[in-house]
Amino acid sequence: MSDPRDTGLALDPKYDAAGLVTAVVTDRASGALLMVAHMNAEALAQTVVTREAHFWSRSRGRLWKKGETSGHVLSVADIRIDCDQDAVWLICDPAGPACHTGQPSCFYRRIDGDRLTPVE
Amino acid sequence: MSDPRDTGLALDPKYDAAGLVTAVVTDRASGALLMVAHMNAEALAQTVVTREAHFWSRSRGRLWKKGETSGHVLSVADIRIDCDQDAVWLICDPAGPACHTGQPSCFYRRIDGDRLTPVE
Repeated sequence: MSDPRDTGLALDPKYDAAGLVTAVVTDRASGALLMVAHMNAEALAQTVVTREAHFWSRSRGRLWKKGETSGHVLSVADIRIDCDQDAVWLICDPAGPACHTGQPSCFYRRIDGDRLTPVE
Repeated sequence: MSDPRDTGLALDPKYDAAGLVTAVVTDRASGALLMVAHMNAEALAQTVVTREAHFWSRSRGRLWKKGETSGHVLSVADIRIDCDQDAVWLICDPAGPACHTGQPSCFYRRIDGDRLTPVE
């Protein structure tokens, strides 16, 4: 019941079979959920050291610094980890839209039944 | 480049090989990130219909209504989906602590280098 990973103070991420944890990014100012991505150990380490969000791109199979081409870097104000250490929360100041569609957040559509409606 | 899943208004979740999407829960009042879990199609449908958060428990291999034993139900005020439709955002009013440790949020520890420190 009392797993040290759940309640202790040692960083011990529980990577999945692909070596990844889930990364959730919120906007420090608005509190909005900006994006969800994945991190391997290197992405997490780079994020902790540089204070800029790095992820593992599953589609491209490589380390990816958010904003490396767009300039829309995510400056990391705070990093938290959940009870079972398989998800990381980055509280960020974004330099531009987080979504590749140009929307500030990737979560720009609401689920209404089986349809979606744009938010705002 | 213009994938209808990314920009259209049809609900078309991109389930992974295990039939799951990521589900992120925030607190409607405080904006805090409460928990990250997973949903299969049935969990998403039940959540949309009942307006109470349902997930797929990977450890128990079954549908799981949050709070079914603890009473700490998550009432769902809004449901959003991200650009590529592999992550869902639930904006909720929690009836009690979201974390099995009794903390309001599962993200109650900050990453400081290779150590964790409790938040607040």
